[in-house]
Amino acid sequence: MATFTDETIRQQFTFLAELDHLKSIVRQSPLINQNRKENSAEHSWHLAMFAIVLSQHAENVDVLRVVKLLLVHDIVEIDAGDTPIHASSKDKALLAQAERQAADRIFGLLPPQQGQELLALWLEFEIAETPEARFAKALDRLQPLFLNTLTGGGTWTENGVTERQVIERYGPTIKAGSPALWDEASNLVRQHFSDQAKAQA
Amino acid sequence: MATFTDETIRQQFTFLAELDHLKSIVRQSPLINQNRKENSAEHSWHLAMFAIVLSQHAENVDVLRVVKLLLVHDIVEIDAGDTPIHASSKDKALLAQAERQAADRIFGLLPPQQGQELLALWLEFEIAETPEARFAKALDRLQPLFLNTLTGGGTWTENGVTERQVIERYGPTIKAGSPALWDEASNLVRQHFSDQAKAQA
Ligand SMILES: [Ca+2]
Repeated sequence: MATFTDETIRQQFTFLAELDHLKSIVRQSPLINQNRKENSAEHSWHLAMFAIVLSQHAENVDVLRVVKLLLVHDIVEIDAGDTPIHASSKDKALLAQAERQAADRIFGLLPPQQGQELLALWLEFEIAETPEARFAKALDRLQPLFLNTLTGGGTWTENGVTERQVIERYGPTIKAGSPALWDEASNLVRQHFSDQAKAQA
Repeated sequence: MATFTDETIRQQFTFLAELDHLKSIVRQSPLINQNRKENSAEHSWHLAMFAIVLSQHAENVDVLRVVKLLLVHDIVEIDAGDTPIHASSKDKALLAQAERQAADRIFGLLPPQQGQELLALWLEFEIAETPEARFAKALDRLQPLFLNTLTGGGTWTENGVTERQVIERYGPTIKAGSPALWDEASNLVRQHFSDQAKAQA
């Protein structure tokens, strides 16, 4: 990194350069045009737009906070990689440890107070106890569901996931953030599996 | 698109599905690891993080508004494509027309009031008269400058752009949003061209 006259800005630029790596973390979900899989940086942008467009369907949330939670929530994947929804519980526990170390390293690049603020946002998302974090988690579960239903099943088809497993793995999280969105999302799921059953008959 | 029980949510989901195309709009700027060029969706995420991290260097801006402006500013590229900084003025005028049509079409997918709100954000960014829009524009100019200095010149090297042209094309916009960031950015530019001159000597 080049010479800076201001140490705060030097630390901030170092962090912003580090973030560039999130563009190379590949997720399981396909793009809707199915040309390739989605990366975690563009996924985070898409989710922030979900928050801006859909916040009326959550109860009384601070939209800036939801957007910030979503912009920040996947940064740890720069070190720890993506955790697929359909991974085993054991893999998920190991990944949670790696993510915590990643959070300390990456947010630690920032000026201390700002690093603490962003770390707190990441923890708020993980713990999912505030209305904002519950809504952010709901959108993070809704968006891949949505991509799957628009691509003939996406990761469900690849992993042999059944309708019942989809309802169990996506339902509680989406419903906790927005019952109205789960109503519509569960319709999409039912319709997808019904279309698939017809196609196979 | 599948059956929805709520017309507002149907329109919002149609819009959010349309946004997926922004992940396939390729920009001129390289990723820092130089494996490929950046797309406009991940660029928008990176910019939103620039806003969250750097807003103390702007004068008195509403950060949510800056973030929204940046998340929305490139959506028109879904129809109109990316406008390179180093394109001719004639090409830029034609592209401005195409972008306006794109804005009407894409934001028109949303429920009318919400579509008007997002269209207004896009226009606010384009006109760049509010402090938030000036800061957003400054970051939109700063980020590719930053990527270029970290990749041995990036689009400057490709297009034979001189140090003086960089100062002229990036300086006024960045300085209008944040004199402090332009101080640091102009140092990075000077250092880049000085390193390059030494390497060629
Ligand atoms: Ca996610």
